[in-house]
Amino acid sequence: MKECVLGIDGGGTKTRAAIMDGEGNILGISVGKTSNYDDIGIEAAQENIKQVVESAQQKAGIGNDPFQAAFLGIGGVCSESDRAIVKRMAVNLHLAPEKEIGVDHDIRIALAGGLSGRPGIVQIAGTGSSCYGRNAEGNSWRSGGWGPLLADEGSGYWFGIEAMKAATRASDGHSQPTALLPSVLKFLEISNIDSIMHRVYVQKMSRSEIASLSPLVISAAKDGDTVSLEIVNNGIQCMAECVSIVAQKLDLMEHCELSLTGGVFQAGDFIIERMRTAVQERIPGCKVMMAELPPVIGSCLLALQSLKIQLSAVKIQDLQKTAAVLCTDV
Amino acid sequence: MKECVLGIDGGGTKTRAAIMDGEGNILGISVGKTSNYDDIGIEAAQENIKQVVESAQQKAGIGNDPFQAAFLGIGGVCSESDRAIVKRMAVNLHLAPEKEIGVDHDIRIALAGGLSGRPGIVQIAGTGSSCYGRNAEGNSWRSGGWGPLLADEGSGYWFGIEAMKAATRASDGHSQPTALLPSVLKFLEISNIDSIMHRVYVQKMSRSEIASLSPLVISAAKDGDTVSLEIVNNGIQCMAECVSIVAQKLDLMEHCELSLTGGVFQAGDFIIERMRTAVQERIPGCKVMMAELPPVIGSCLLALQSLKIQLSAVKIQDLQKTAAVLCTDV
Repeated sequence: MKECVLGIDGGGTKTRAAIMDGEGNILGISVGKTSNYDDIGIEAAQENIKQVVESAQQKAGIGNDPFQAAFLGIGGVCSESDRAIVKRMAVNLHLAPEKEIGVDHDIRIALAGGLSGRPGIVQIAGTGSSCYGRNAEGNSWRSGGWGPLLADEGSGYWFGIEAMKAATRASDGHSQPTALLPSVLKFLEISNIDSIMHRVYVQKMSRSEIASLSPLVISAAKDGDTVSLEIVNNGIQCMAECVSIVAQKLDLMEHCELSLTGGVFQAGDFIIERMRTAVQERIPGCKVMMAELPPVIGSCLLALQSLKIQLSAVKIQDLQKTAAVLCTDV
Repeated sequence: MKECVLGIDGGGTKTRAAIMDGEGNILGISVGKTSNYDDIGIEAAQENIKQVVESAQQKAGIGNDPFQAAFLGIGGVCSESDRAIVKRMAVNLHLAPEKEIGVDHDIRIALAGGLSGRPGIVQIAGTGSSCYGRNAEGNSWRSGGWGPLLADEGSGYWFGIEAMKAATRASDGHSQPTALLPSVLKFLEISNIDSIMHRVYVQKMSRSEIASLSPLVISAAKDGDTVSLEIVNNGIQCMAECVSIVAQKLDLMEHCELSLTGGVFQAGDFIIERMRTAVQERIPGCKVMMAELPPVIGSCLLALQSLKIQLSAVKIQDLQKTAAVLCTDV
């Protein structure tokens, strides 16, 4: 059999697996349950990875033999001990020879996908936000991305919190009127702003529920609401600052590519162009683009890299045309 | 029997009850379990109130007859429906004739205690922060106090979060070095800042555990740490802004008394004097003082007020001498 590698993208709620051959053809791709062992325990996480891999193998029409290499990008994997836990799971499952199993946090594969394997920086602004870069020498740096309580500027969750803050501040005399007060009340289905405390703390809004408020801010900002525009600009400036810090740490100020990914940037040019401007004010030559490939394909590219396989530019272009569609379907 | 009133202070973790006669003598005082019905349900909260009242009645050497009036200040009681729930409990327990039962959130009794029943403003900075005022006409206004996710500036929790943010920002390139990085690592008993995410999100630090980091900031600020001084000044300015908003809303800019209460102000003159300065920059004539009486005694004063009983200045002074000690003991 030819080279065949496995890529895993373990996000907060789902795990994706993709199988790629040595020429960069996607043979099978599948989605399964979470591999977040902090939430469900190591045994259950390993079982979920096993299932999603087997499902991808079935789709690829191949057996359960080990792959030549595997790369697992798993959310929340920050420390050496985290990496060791995930590596142990992959070894237990015989996914690939131990020395060809790579493990890192999922922002690493977001970068590998976003820039199709090239060095550079990725800024994620989904439910959470984080900035991560890696240069040609293999050095990496993360800035921001300390989670919702410590550093989450620009994320959907952050926008949602800011929307609710703006509503309370407008009501208690802190700020001028804002369209966010009525729109937040309507979204939360409450008639009085005092009830927001019951919604947030007693009914315990989830992180993703809070993030679902973020379009209110972007919509109001587009309509010229001053308070909302300030929130958008603040989030953008914070993210651009992270990008600039990473570029400096990795000596990427002269030549830098930045990939944007996550739901917040799906809001389109209104956000993307502001982000481009804020980044280029700090790093004039920086090329800012939307992610080229999804993270799970990024993890396949990293698995190929460990076998010293570099795909051709033509093959990468093929992947860019097809991968997004393939990953939407699973 | 002479007039005899009941005051209840229902905080987040404890409920206090005090019984006072019509001359302002404290007959009995007791502490019991939480009356937060959002956490434990209405039935259990009512039972806990019943127990703490009976305990205070025993200490007072009186029977279980209804009081002439009762005032219940309960944390989180913001809306009319919240007040109705607490009033129903008090009626069920026959604490006093229904029309002599007062109910409000616990910051109302903190104000009544802090200024010994006089109109004015209270700024709380304990685990949480909040600012509330009430003028001679009986109008009231709250600013801030929307809880840990929405508006908690200056609270112990806020200082704790800021300490951890400063540590992460110093480590990921956002800020200059700060004494908070080593002190936070030591306090959390972690050797690497990356482990902070495991401590905060996986081990789920509680609100009070996070608040317990606040002395690190104040201590480092006293030692001249620039980042910590910025945090302190930021918290103070936010709280002074709340005070100023409340004073404006209640027409108290010309004559205003402000009571400070909560653990953050226990740090002493380093915080108190900065707060005094920041408030007086906005409200030049404002008299800033530490709370004169504890909240549970404030609730007794409110119960007396509903019977049109006003204590003499001499009696208030007596209470100020004894009440703090009495309340520390229970």
